[in-house]
Amino acid sequence: MDGAARVYGGIEAGGTKWVCAVADAGGDLLATEVIPTTTPETTIRAAVRFFEGHRPLAALGVGTFGPVDVRPGSPTYGRILATPKQGWANADVVSPFRAALGVPVRLDTDVNAAALGEWRRGAGMGLGTFAYMTVGTGVGVGAVVNDGLVHGLLHGLLHPEFGHIRIPRDPVRDPFTGSCPFHGDCLEGLASGEAMRRRWGRPAEHLDDPSAWELEAEYVALAVVNLTYTLSPERIVVGGGVAKHPALLPAVRARLLTLAAGYPGAPVPVGQAAMDEYVVGPSLGDRSGVAGAVELARAAGPAPSSPRF
Amino acid sequence: MDGAARVYGGIEAGGTKWVCAVADAGGDLLATEVIPTTTPETTIRAAVRFFEGHRPLAALGVGTFGPVDVRPGSPTYGRILATPKQGWANADVVSPFRAALGVPVRLDTDVNAAALGEWRRGAGMGLGTFAYMTVGTGVGVGAVVNDGLVHGLLHGLLHPEFGHIRIPRDPVRDPFTGSCPFHGDCLEGLASGEAMRRRWGRPAEHLDDPSAWELEAEYVALAVVNLTYTLSPERIVVGGGVAKHPALLPAVRARLLTLAAGYPGAPVPVGQAAMDEYVVGPSLGDRSGVAGAVELARAAGPAPSSPRF
Repeated sequence: MDGAARVYGGIEAGGTKWVCAVADAGGDLLATEVIPTTTPETTIRAAVRFFEGHRPLAALGVGTFGPVDVRPGSPTYGRILATPKQGWANADVVSPFRAALGVPVRLDTDVNAAALGEWRRGAGMGLGTFAYMTVGTGVGVGAVVNDGLVHGLLHGLLHPEFGHIRIPRDPVRDPFTGSCPFHGDCLEGLASGEAMRRRWGRPAEHLDDPSAWELEAEYVALAVVNLTYTLSPERIVVGGGVAKHPALLPAVRARLLTLAAGYPGAPVPVGQAAMDEYVVGPSLGDRSGVAGAVELARAAGPAPSSPRF
Repeated sequence: MDGAARVYGGIEAGGTKWVCAVADAGGDLLATEVIPTTTPETTIRAAVRFFEGHRPLAALGVGTFGPVDVRPGSPTYGRILATPKQGWANADVVSPFRAALGVPVRLDTDVNAAALGEWRRGAGMGLGTFAYMTVGTGVGVGAVVNDGLVHGLLHGLLHPEFGHIRIPRDPVRDPFTGSCPFHGDCLEGLASGEAMRRRWGRPAEHLDDPSAWELEAEYVALAVVNLTYTLSPERIVVGGGVAKHPALLPAVRARLLTLAAGYPGAPVPVGQAAMDEYVVGPSLGDRSGVAGAVELARAAGPAPSSPRF
């Protein structure tokens, strides 16, 4: 300890890169570093090195790709479970940090961390019920209800997997039967970046065909409708790589207005102005996840005023 | 006041009947009465008479059909909104009771009341995340997340309307385009009692064709899957008139096991035994709603130990 103010660390642990950050006690980011995801050993070592350069560290938060066991007390807590990602099945993303850095480590899924970031410091600030949807390589949702993140717990259950809800597909308009290896044409199988790549033969960032983006907007709008009718969030942030295409969110909002169809008492906002406030991009840009990981650390920290979720 | 112990009143206000009950301070039902739903004036007068016979009344809870404005402070709080039910649009189901009985009145939707009843005193007791789905004339869900009922609040929003989520329909297997006047083949448009009546030409209670119940199980299973992937509830109770058919829940559970399709980390239980515990009928039978209305009253009551949700 050198008397310097303590900092809070966060990691957004993704399948292609890890974003590491330290923040001050108020949660403002002081430094960030992006590390390519290679082997667990190499990636974790590089992350540890980053945090060793920013002591004194009070706590660390990790928002990770999955599936991951986030149940404290479980024998496999902190481990990545069955994943197609080479070398990462059974990797422990908690204990090595605890051992090397000697601080409390708090874990959640990547999408819950992003939801937390936007909720505490971004487009969801101050809302009691709020959802963050990521549309990228996969599709997922992190939701805040009754002022806390939604964490179900059950049987073999780990966390909600909104990407696998079933939505309608018109086989005439979209003959692609879906990319999900488990369900075929579930939401993720129809709307993820991987689904777009397989349906159209090239990745989403190289797709400019308006009909491709109209179809994508159809599926994202159906996802927003189902989320709305289930949770009535006050706002839905749609982030992730695919959602960066400038055509997507405007088309989603337009489709939502027709899908809601004037149902009285519907929780879907009516009118373009309300819709523009309802479905929005992440106000933290690419930093929702790591900002949320820092919030996890702040909640894990020893201060009696630590926020709780 | 005659020195007798105070009682808590509850009303399950349905479109065809109102169930009224009084319970002791522990929530155990002492007396119930069923009143046919006629005009608002006649129905409310009969309910008031029931409660006048059971004084001293501490508080009243009302779980009502809708759509209803449940936002305290709203100018139309306590009023039934646009409803096809003759004479009930704009009916106030709160103020007349407050005026006649002089007690606090707490309001929620019928399905939230039923969820509350099963959560506090039935199949959901002690669970942190739990859902009650009704499949009757309509389809709805009341959910408990982070130890509270899910109440979104937004724009013109009243409460979640899970019945209107979109699910897949195979037009070859089911050419019926749905009964929902707003969305056609949304969940309620495909799976409600009204949808069954229109698809098959007779009401659900007179339907024995196994293919009708297999199709119904398909839609209810899709609803359960989407609810599971959104909330990861620890248990889902399926109640309502249509769900009373003995073939339905076993068929729903069987279909769920195939729909989950072995997705690793899925919150859907794997195996018949776990599934039998996951999707269950209401353990309060026809009394989930009124028991929940009594719980609303207990929460509204003046005692400092009143439960909060």
